[in-house]
Amino acid sequence: MKHLGKHLIMELWDCDKQALDNQAGVEKMLEDATNSCGATLICIRTHKFSPQGVTGVAVLAESHISIHTWPEIGYAAMDIFTCGEHVNPEDAIPAIRDFLKPAKFDIIDIKRGSMVE
Amino acid sequence: MKHLGKHLIMELWDCDKQALDNQAGVEKMLEDATNSCGATLICIRTHKFSPQGVTGVAVLAESHISIHTWPEIGYAAMDIFTCGEHVNPEDAIPAIRDFLKPAKFDIIDIKRGSMVE
Repeated sequence: MKHLGKHLIMELWDCDKQALDNQAGVEKMLEDATNSCGATLICIRTHKFSPQGVTGVAVLAESHISIHTWPEIGYAAMDIFTCGEHVNPEDAIPAIRDFLKPAKFDIIDIKRGSMVE
Repeated sequence: MKHLGKHLIMELWDCDKQALDNQAGVEKMLEDATNSCGATLICIRTHKFSPQGVTGVAVLAESHISIHTWPEIGYAAMDIFTCGEHVNPEDAIPAIRDFLKPAKFDIIDIKRGSMVE
């Protein structure tokens, strides 16, 4: 079975709460994650919520990386969706771990666009 | 079990190939999908690939909607991720169906940020 995309659904708990609320830091992490998995960045958009929380999306030539944070409970929901043989989304994980420092990190690995060859 | 977010992972096959390659149309569909599920739009970014394919992300106050298209095989991968009780991601589906006209539409429904109450 061939597939078009690899999609990692990541649940990050007990993260560094300051990092979760740091808009510039989230933007830098998205850039680092993009570079470390060999993807090509089209643009990054982040948004800081009041009183807390950050949303960020990196639009890639190979799909996207997204993050939504809840600093008040130490949680972040992240997705890495990549297509193409030259990009491995797992390679982005160290940049994410380094920045958010999750004590608990659950990943669901989904294949997108699965086709019978 | 309480959860923070609702995430619909959508696999759309045998779509209208012209719609899949229509950047302005994808942007309008993302806007319609956002409005129809009662979400608040922060921004939309779309990108047209050469020779074909469109990527689009709607950044929402309640998370995001994304689309990546492969017009050459009639396929689109979409995600709707929303948080908050007032937004129901299923309500965005008619706007998506109307635009892409998929003959086959598979949905995986994932709860994000599940917590024991």
